Amino acid sequence: MKIIDVTLTLRPDMPTWPGQPAPSLTPHSRIAQGGSSNVSILSLGDHTGTHVDPPLHMLEGGYAAERLPLPPMFGLCRVLRYDGDGHIGAAWLERQSLPSSVSRVLFRTRNSEHWRRGDNEFDKTFTALDPTAGAWLAARDIVLVGVDYLSIEPFGSSPIGHPVHKALLGKGVIVVEGLDLHEVDPGDYDIACLPLKILAGDGAPARVVLMRR
Amino acid sequence: MKIIDVTLTLRPDMPTWPGQPAPSLTPHSRIAQGGSSNVSILSLGDHTGTHVDPPLHMLEGGYAAERLPLPPMFGLCRVLRYDGDGHIGAAWLERQSLPSSVSRVLFRTRNSEHWRRGDNEFDKTFTALDPTAGAWLAARDIVLVGVDYLSIEPFGSSPIGHPVHKALLGKGVIVVEGLDLHEVDPGDYDIACLPLKILAGDGAPARVVLMRR
Repeated sequence: MKIIDVTLTLRPDMPTWPGQPAPSLTPHSRIAQGGSSNVSILSLGDHTGTHVDPPLHMLEGGYAAERLPLPPMFGLCRVLRYDGDGHIGAAWLERQSLPSSVSRVLFRTRNSEHWRRGDNEFDKTFTALDPTAGAWLAARDIVLVGVDYLSIEPFGSSPIGHPVHKALLGKGVIVVEGLDLHEVDPGDYDIACLPLKILAGDGAPARVVLMRR
Repeated sequence: MKIIDVTLTLRPDMPTWPGQPAPSLTPHSRIAQGGSSNVSILSLGDHTGTHVDPPLHMLEGGYAAERLPLPPMFGLCRVLRYDGDGHIGAAWLERQSLPSSVSRVLFRTRNSEHWRRGDNEFDKTFTALDPTAGAWLAARDIVLVGVDYLSIEPFGSSPIGHPVHKALLGKGVIVVEGLDLHEVDPGDYDIACLPLKILAGDGAPARVVLMRR
């Protein structure tokens, strides 16, 4: 069984959302300095790199990271490839003819080329789901949606109130952001997505892998 | 398929290794204060709660968290129950008659009662593997060993140079610490253990689940 790691490496020079700090790793104990082991302190925004959004991220009163349900995180997952320039909309989704057996969907877009190249700068023009795509997915029996940049909806969605996040999180759909899909061909896989179990966390850094069916 | 979460919840009042800080979650953006979403900064020692030890933790020049191999993290896993008062030794392991098909082993001990109760204090008398057990496991085709407290070897092992860590990490065995096994009956499961992918990390907080076979 081949395991494909679709997780971004947490590194100080990785792109983060504008205004959010880069992750840091600070030495706490060092063998080289007489310590009995190497131990470090990790500090990072809880929406850094590959991560899961609990409802609390966008919905006041929504549940937090430690209560994310686990069954949606495992099982059959379809990777769709989108090569368009604009954002993904309902009309394009409709044309993909998703069978009812598929309840987890990941979108590989041009964004993943950033991860292939190891880019360090945040790209505000990243490809995402438009509000029609959010509504389309929320209206179906979808349990997990994953994207290959740091938000599931376009940059600048604050003024319109993040309709894609709210449609999906309000329906209890697991939203996974920051996937590195540059090595993943379209098709069906088994996904394993495991976010950190953070009490009251409004985001949860995760490790995500795909296994080819 | 029943998924059993064997991960400790990251919380400010959880027990941590003496001298290591508690995890903290600091608000970065709050909807209640006019932000467009809830985002926080997580800070934690990389050996906090449920975590994996890469070789770099104890072996200078050993590889770090981002290079931990993934195949050992998935597959058949046996949970052994140890009810003794002392530490686990080779003689006890020998009596368990592990078949050669079992290459992943977790130890449920009295330690897990701390997690059942939600104890906040670090217990220096935790049960662990003694050096004979470390050598016994390292001499076999074991790829993953997990324990239900914060170290795989007894408290106070620094003066003797952490022989259990070094035997296992030197052999490339995945060491998982801080598992909560209080709800897990002895027997065979499928494990999924996914540590954060931290560049140069000497430890990696993880989410770990068991699925009953």
